[in-house]
Amino acid sequence: MGDAAGIGTEVIAKSLTDERVARACRCVIYGDETIFSSVLRILKIDLALKPIAFPRREAADAHVSFVQCGDYPMSHVHYGEMDRRCAVNSVGYINRAIRDALSSKIDAMVTAPINKASIRRAGLPLDGHTDYLAQESGTKDYAMMFVGGGLRVVLMTVHIALTVVPERITESAVLAKIRLTDRYLKQWFGIDKPRIAVCGLNPHAGEEGMFGKEESERIFPAVQTAQSEGISVSGPYPADTVFNRCKGGEFDVVIAMYHDQGLLPVKLLAFDEGVNITIGLPFVRTSPDHGTAYDIAGRGIAHPGSTTAAILLAAEIAERLKRPAKPEG
Amino acid sequence: MGDAAGIGTEVIAKSLTDERVARACRCVIYGDETIFSSVLRILKIDLALKPIAFPRREAADAHVSFVQCGDYPMSHVHYGEMDRRCAVNSVGYINRAIRDALSSKIDAMVTAPINKASIRRAGLPLDGHTDYLAQESGTKDYAMMFVGGGLRVVLMTVHIALTVVPERITESAVLAKIRLTDRYLKQWFGIDKPRIAVCGLNPHAGEEGMFGKEESERIFPAVQTAQSEGISVSGPYPADTVFNRCKGGEFDVVIAMYHDQGLLPVKLLAFDEGVNITIGLPFVRTSPDHGTAYDIAGRGIAHPGSTTAAILLAAEIAERLKRPAKPEG
Repeated sequence: MGDAAGIGTEVIAKSLTDERVARACRCVIYGDETIFSSVLRILKIDLALKPIAFPRREAADAHVSFVQCGDYPMSHVHYGEMDRRCAVNSVGYINRAIRDALSSKIDAMVTAPINKASIRRAGLPLDGHTDYLAQESGTKDYAMMFVGGGLRVVLMTVHIALTVVPERITESAVLAKIRLTDRYLKQWFGIDKPRIAVCGLNPHAGEEGMFGKEESERIFPAVQTAQSEGISVSGPYPADTVFNRCKGGEFDVVIAMYHDQGLLPVKLLAFDEGVNITIGLPFVRTSPDHGTAYDIAGRGIAHPGSTTAAILLAAEIAERLKRPAKPEG
Repeated sequence: MGDAAGIGTEVIAKSLTDERVARACRCVIYGDETIFSSVLRILKIDLALKPIAFPRREAADAHVSFVQCGDYPMSHVHYGEMDRRCAVNSVGYINRAIRDALSSKIDAMVTAPINKASIRRAGLPLDGHTDYLAQESGTKDYAMMFVGGGLRVVLMTVHIALTVVPERITESAVLAKIRLTDRYLKQWFGIDKPRIAVCGLNPHAGEEGMFGKEESERIFPAVQTAQSEGISVSGPYPADTVFNRCKGGEFDVVIAMYHDQGLLPVKLLAFDEGVNITIGLPFVRTSPDHGTAYDIAGRGIAHPGSTTAAILLAAEIAERLKRPAKPEG
């Protein structure tokens, strides 16, 4: 349910009214039922919630089940205002969902936005879903991926200052992300031989070393090693044209070197339907690509497109993983 | 005419057949007439070239005039191959055009692509049009701007390694670019009070200093000073969403901190019609946003859209500059 003072509850509620969601999956909401029910009332959404203690068995016949969790049961929330209880609860919802995901009680997890500033102020030990989910599931090798607007983009680095980016672009780090991307595009997206494009770090991908050596000394060697392992990867390509080529169907995925290089094209082409997905985790996890949006919370105007797309993608991947693996050859 | 071994001649020739170009301006081509005429023949374009020694007076009645220049008159060119003569000539064409622009014999200059690698190999003293035009016209305060896909983007930094970008983002440099952008959007684009958005350097524009201090310590103070001067500027904004807002009409222009941050959105939204324009010069200069494309040169498949758009934009600005200035108040 995310941070209850943000738009999370609203976009979940709206998404649940989408027929495609109803067809694709049964949903279990981890959150505070009083708050969520009040959102349904405000939005005039007529939806039966089935309270359950443990997902899966009891939930078999319900479209939407509800797991009450979080440390502070709340009767009321002030939208758009930081509230320690909302922050603490949002982590409680995640903790419970992680437990159920790791024990396969749920097939996939879709996280609603948490508020990092509020969580920091509350002194809680996490800085965002992705790293926390990796840490709590003991995952070392993982990456943020974004899907939308005809693009799939994997990020080499995420929430760090631009000055720090170049030193993180090592040959071994690039190679690890290429291998991870290849594996998860096969397993989760059902692409037999994913065509992976790797971005350069510098303008014109360094233009033959004129504007930086990271391409020739670190990125290209990693691409070559991955190619020698049979992975269909190429690059480094200039970042200002590679996304057009991906969109045009030349590649299945682009590996971007830093946050804005990867997020800018996705948000430009898929503003209201971009999906964040964590590859590398032992369970499927997606999320909308926006935050809590305190500035518009509680006004009923939040666009549910990104959350709807996140639910549908999670359901699609979970469905694919249930099918027996294709025989080789 | 640019580098004759590239696609420059082809996209110029194709653009000259565009009716909008014929209506908008009279063109003077600076180049090698033998080469250009052969391109017209190959493309089966029936176009009368009027050879002239000095633009303006004699050209008054001709749609397309031709100024023969360059040190090496050529009878033949190998497309897609570096040729010292093509490189030297391409600089000769520019030099002649600069002279005529500075003495107002022409109203605007549109440059076709030169080949930097070929120019470097020939040992010539320029690394790109923009800096050379500034140097030769004694211009200190200038910037690359790109127009296309519903966006106008001004670059703080251009062809430098990403590691060097942060140190170039000083308060005074940002302030200078804001002032320049404001001035030229008024003068050249006829916008009374340009709404200028400034990008952050770091992800989420630094997220309140968590991922870098450049926003709070350098960019924001520059924005504040410009605001106090009456300029309608705001930011710094996260780069992954500000271009959507510009496209949606909220801003007239975005100032990007580095090459890929600004070029990525323009090329994604305006792939075949992006225009590069140098603000700050004493004359109007535009160009297509692509290079010599040696890989497809001489094959007749180059898209003229960007060159056509560059000619039309140059003509539009030149026309605006001829009108008497609007009285104040």
